[in-house]
Amino acid sequence: MNLVLHSYFRSSTSTRLRAALNLKGLAYDTVAWHLRKGEQRSAAYLAKNPQGLVPALELWDGTVLTQSLAIIEYLEEAHPEPPLLPVGPVDRARVRAIAYAVACEIHPVNNLRILDYLRSEFGADDAAVTAWFRHWVAATFAPLEAMLASDPGTGRFCRGDRPGLADICLYAQVLNNRRFGIDMEPYPTIRRIFDACAALPAFIAAAPENQPDAE
Amino acid sequence: MNLVLHSYFRSSTSTRLRAALNLKGLAYDTVAWHLRKGEQRSAAYLAKNPQGLVPALELWDGTVLTQSLAIIEYLEEAHPEPPLLPVGPVDRARVRAIAYAVACEIHPVNNLRILDYLRSEFGADDAAVTAWFRHWVAATFAPLEAMLASDPGTGRFCRGDRPGLADICLYAQVLNNRRFGIDMEPYPTIRRIFDACAALPAFIAAAPENQPDAE
Repeated sequence: MNLVLHSYFRSSTSTRLRAALNLKGLAYDTVAWHLRKGEQRSAAYLAKNPQGLVPALELWDGTVLTQSLAIIEYLEEAHPEPPLLPVGPVDRARVRAIAYAVACEIHPVNNLRILDYLRSEFGADDAAVTAWFRHWVAATFAPLEAMLASDPGTGRFCRGDRPGLADICLYAQVLNNRRFGIDMEPYPTIRRIFDACAALPAFIAAAPENQPDAE
Repeated sequence: MNLVLHSYFRSSTSTRLRAALNLKGLAYDTVAWHLRKGEQRSAAYLAKNPQGLVPALELWDGTVLTQSLAIIEYLEEAHPEPPLLPVGPVDRARVRAIAYAVACEIHPVNNLRILDYLRSEFGADDAAVTAWFRHWVAATFAPLEAMLASDPGTGRFCRGDRPGLADICLYAQVLNNRRFGIDMEPYPTIRRIFDACAALPAFIAAAPENQPDAE
């Protein structure tokens, strides 16, 4: 019996989890919940995840795990090979810090429900929403670029030559950025790492356009 | 030589890290950077953390770690006792999911720089900012309350009777909520867990009002 991934093709956090599952070589079935249609708030989905957010991962015994980064840490612990984190605690902290910079600073303020609130409560138009999105990407990508470019531990990927947790988060964010026309010119290292990810089957198979519910 | 914690008394993420350090029994010296005065963007601080965010933890050898949750995972790995995470991968995922629900959904959209942007770019007044803050707390606290109340694994704390990563994040968030007059009546389980934390010396010593830079 396969793992079951509850997700939405365009969800950035779903992309993260798909990439992690693919890198680990774990087979999964996809159940899609259409965020634009509000299916994540249906009784059927809330019974799986009371938070009404995707992704969630259903294990073989019916256990449902939530929060993309918590699930990826679970995968790392339950299926250690190939590793998505380096060995030493300081190196692991550095990789997690990059992942969390994306996951705790960019994605939360730029996801669908936030942008909807800006439109409905503050009357933000497309230009204002795009400016907001770009502002928060730049606030984090600029220092991340400097940190990655100057760190001798940066290799083909964020840490060395093997893709891991930080690359997964960056990859999903850069894909998301495209919908808001983010210029990647100021971020050559991030772009190079994104390109390295985008060449790998695990990441290609995780991309929104390659999901069964893609539109 | 002590660890050095770069922080701001009122920063919720600094409170998290202080609580973790205290629970681990690790001594540290505090260096305060005044966020309201913009000291986190000074050259002196950017040399420590190019992201210009607190907290950061400086280790004995001068290594600087960033992102509160990445640092707490580091502490857990480098100083395993007492543990802040349970043993089994599924239990660990559950605890991390609660921590990330706070850290990736509530805190990022409600921190100082976001509220400042709402005021300056969208003309949000105090009432609009408060409504925004309360909206995102409720969006996550309501399902978290239901999950914690129904989970047989919930004890005196989020997982059993020992405080850990999830409690740390909840504690710091509830303290933050007070500044926006969040009614805790709908969240009896979260309130009970907060009260259990607030009775412990490690959390008391982590509270904003007990920091050297408190105003």
